[in-house]
Amino acid sequence: MTAPAPLSHAARRHLLGIQGLSPQDITALLDLAEAEVAVSRQTEKKKSVLKGRTQINLFFESSTRTQASFELAGKRLGADVMNMSVASSSVKKGETLIDTAMTLNAMQPDILVVRHHSAGAVALLAQKVACSVVNAGDGAHEHPTQALLDALTIRRHKGRIARLVVAICGDVLHSRVARSNIILLNALGAEVRVVAPSTLLPSGIEQMGVTVFRRMDEGLKGADVVMMLRLQRERMEGAFIPSVREYFRYFGLDAAKLAHAKPDALVMHPGPMNRGVEIASEIADGPMSVIEEQVEMGVAVRMAVIETLLDMAGDDR
Amino acid sequence: MTAPAPLSHAARRHLLGIQGLSPQDITALLDLAEAEVAVSRQTEKKKSVLKGRTQINLFFESSTRTQASFELAGKRLGADVMNMSVASSSVKKGETLIDTAMTLNAMQPDILVVRHHSAGAVALLAQKVACSVVNAGDGAHEHPTQALLDALTIRRHKGRIARLVVAICGDVLHSRVARSNIILLNALGAEVRVVAPSTLLPSGIEQMGVTVFRRMDEGLKGADVVMMLRLQRERMEGAFIPSVREYFRYFGLDAAKLAHAKPDALVMHPGPMNRGVEIASEIADGPMSVIEEQVEMGVAVRMAVIETLLDMAGDDR
Amino acid sequence: MTAPAPLSHAARRHLLGIQGLSPQDITALLDLAEAEVAVSRQTEKKKSVLKGRTQINLFFESSTRTQASFELAGKRLGADVMNMSVASSSVKKGETLIDTAMTLNAMQPDILVVRHHSAGAVALLAQKVACSVVNAGDGAHEHPTQALLDALTIRRHKGRIARLVVAICGDVLHSRVARSNIILLNALGAEVRVVAPSTLLPSGIEQMGVTVFRRMDEGLKGADVVMMLRLQRERMEGAFIPSVREYFRYFGLDAAKLAHAKPDALVMHPGPMNRGVEIASEIADGPMSVIEEQVEMGVAVRMAVIETLLDMAGDDR
Repeated sequence: MTAPAPLSHAARRHLLGIQGLSPQDITALLDLAEAEVAVSRQTEKKKSVLKGRTQINLFFESSTRTQASFELAGKRLGADVMNMSVASSSVKKGETLIDTAMTLNAMQPDILVVRHHSAGAVALLAQKVACSVVNAGDGAHEHPTQALLDALTIRRHKGRIARLVVAICGDVLHSRVARSNIILLNALGAEVRVVAPSTLLPSGIEQMGVTVFRRMDEGLKGADVVMMLRLQRERMEGAFIPSVREYFRYFGLDAAKLAHAKPDALVMHPGPMNRGVEIASEIADGPMSVIEEQVEMGVAVRMAVIETLLDMAGDDR
Repeated sequence: MTAPAPLSHAARRHLLGIQGLSPQDITALLDLAEAEVAVSRQTEKKKSVLKGRTQINLFFESSTRTQASFELAGKRLGADVMNMSVASSSVKKGETLIDTAMTLNAMQPDILVVRHHSAGAVALLAQKVACSVVNAGDGAHEHPTQALLDALTIRRHKGRIARLVVAICGDVLHSRVARSNIILLNALGAEVRVVAPSTLLPSGIEQMGVTVFRRMDEGLKGADVVMMLRLQRERMEGAFIPSVREYFRYFGLDAAKLAHAKPDALVMHPGPMNRGVEIASEIADGPMSVIEEQVEMGVAVRMAVIETLLDMAGDDR
Repeated sequence: MTAPAPLSHAARRHLLGIQGLSPQDITALLDLAEAEVAVSRQTEKKKSVLKGRTQINLFFESSTRTQASFELAGKRLGADVMNMSVASSSVKKGETLIDTAMTLNAMQPDILVVRHHSAGAVALLAQKVACSVVNAGDGAHEHPTQALLDALTIRRHKGRIARLVVAICGDVLHSRVARSNIILLNALGAEVRVVAPSTLLPSGIEQMGVTVFRRMDEGLKGADVVMMLRLQRERMEGAFIPSVREYFRYFGLDAAKLAHAKPDALVMHPGPMNRGVEIASEIADGPMSVIEEQVEMGVAVRMAVIETLLDMAGDDR
């Protein structure tokens, strides 16, 4: 199936988070993404569905993999893609976020992909523009395409998300990846655990429908999926910073800890990895790792998101 | 009408400034730009007239909106567009401006869009290359596409430029936008005023055919168009820097000062705005503001300029 | 002839250096490049042979001319081109070279163009990816497309490479350009000389099949081609740094020194030039200089390399 499926009303124009998507929305996006995987595996990896459309990637935080993934997604759909990084932008000249948004909006893009260091900034921006907006990560809030690509990777291996035991491990406090994954996995019926030291857990995390573990051996016991998080040392200003050695000893994924998970468990990481900090190299490169496949699914999921949003924007006209 | 109209001889190959364009040249560009507006409003916002042509944007000064506008203009015409910013260029390795120009020229671009911090640098570069050159701003000299987009915005609202009273207000001294606008508006028969403190006026400005005012209430009296300029604090090394508070009190556009203009006056600003410095937010976002429309017209005008220059370059072969 | 000719087995998938190419490989690439020259001289300078293919330029060292040349080459072949510079990449976040490579590989590019400051890094990366890799310069090791463009430029003027006397002059020690040229010119039967002060010569250089000269008058005597090298002052940490004045006096190419070469000798420089350091302006801009033509040939050679590698990668499937 290659035709984009309609999203429910709440999600019609933008993708600001997994919050607000119905299980049907999520499944429709994953189904389309599955078809997009094939496009990138062709020699001529290009569709023309978005020919003449304009996609602008507006990144207030730099990111190799996410911006590259969105850029390739747009180009493989046939769109004209323009990157705008904050370093060379008017923000330095004192222009406000909203003025930047209004300026770009006036250039009539069809889709804005936005990453911003503040939670909520992308939603604020979306209110001011006429085009579709995709959240490519806003502060510690959400990173919805990461959760979708993680779900697609899991579904391809396990055939489903429902009833799987997924352990999300590490720096949950600073992680929008964790937040989006928790919401999505719960929506699709998984059993979600978080495993982290108290200092790296947001207060009230239990209310998001997860079981909290403080020890890796307990948290990983019987897990179908072990999702490691990047230790976001660059975000830990003034906070408790564990020594890397100690962190790895207690929370880094190595063979001994992984032995507690199911024998056919998947090991995932959103990248970029700190090898020897949150994950041992032998595990990152080992047979249970699907880390590279996650990157491939990233392009496919972003193609599906962009195509679906633009298809529905067209319906509204 | 969509076919590019021929420019007069002086303007055949490059667009280095408004100086040297005849009223007929200007009108022809505005007429074509009017047709280009429609292209960007389509779902498939793309022409193929410049398929296979190469446009290089060479920016020695960074600029979000201008570079983005030229990039989209080129892409919507079907050209291959390449951005070169000075930060990653050989200029740091000691290469001269001319060597950079010669190097790019040897790669056979069809059009070079150049912004440089020195007045005259773009004209110098244009003498050395075989392709068409568009001045995207050179020092305090000219910024011709800004003047063209301002004129297009005015003409769409007022139906003409001739006999309109246009007040250009603020930091005229450091403004290539002011210079290009003064030349264009005079060429098309407007009555041009400048309103600024003495310290922000170039000496001899009266000889450019403008009337000088030192007070906003007098300068705005009966104006059809109020063009605010950005206070270029980054250019004011060592010069008299007014306090922002005092500057806004005397020269910032607020409702009280705007009341002196005609009731249907247009409020314009080239962006990026310093809100609360040269313009109040309520005015920038108010009903008389056409600031966002200026950005939209920017893409259209740049499409018209590029298409016209390349069309004429083709004639010469 | 426009169909890419097959390379010998050793060179089938990547272009990591001139080392390993047979004379037939080199000649086949030069022949195809000759045909590509015509493409860039057309009004519509574009082929569609690589439509829908993905080229990623991964530059760990910045370079105006080389990155631009590869970008235009890819676009003129019809590929989608994405630039990744190290400044905005995950390398700053502690990701390893190999993880960066694996991440990009998972996005399924068809070709990776890589520049890196360490000799051997590009070959290491090539072992880890499924796509074709082109070395755009690795440390002081190789810069194969530069040697190919130099050879193409020479061949267009002299009709052959064999038996020509080529003097490579200046900072041979830090120059990957010199290394790649020495290998290529020897492979095609030229007589290769190097002319440099002892401090700027790698030890054992004679074993690469060159004759060493310490004086320009002797080294240039009867030369058909004078290839000047850039004085890589940015690489000379702690090493003997000659004064610029003294360097120019003994090793800078001026009219007096050039008079020792043949009357129809070619003057070449890979750029960017330090005028007045390794070359006098009057010579750089003089009638014997083919420096700009080298830049033009650069785009053509890179088109030939990319087209050939992708054509052969297709054969393997």
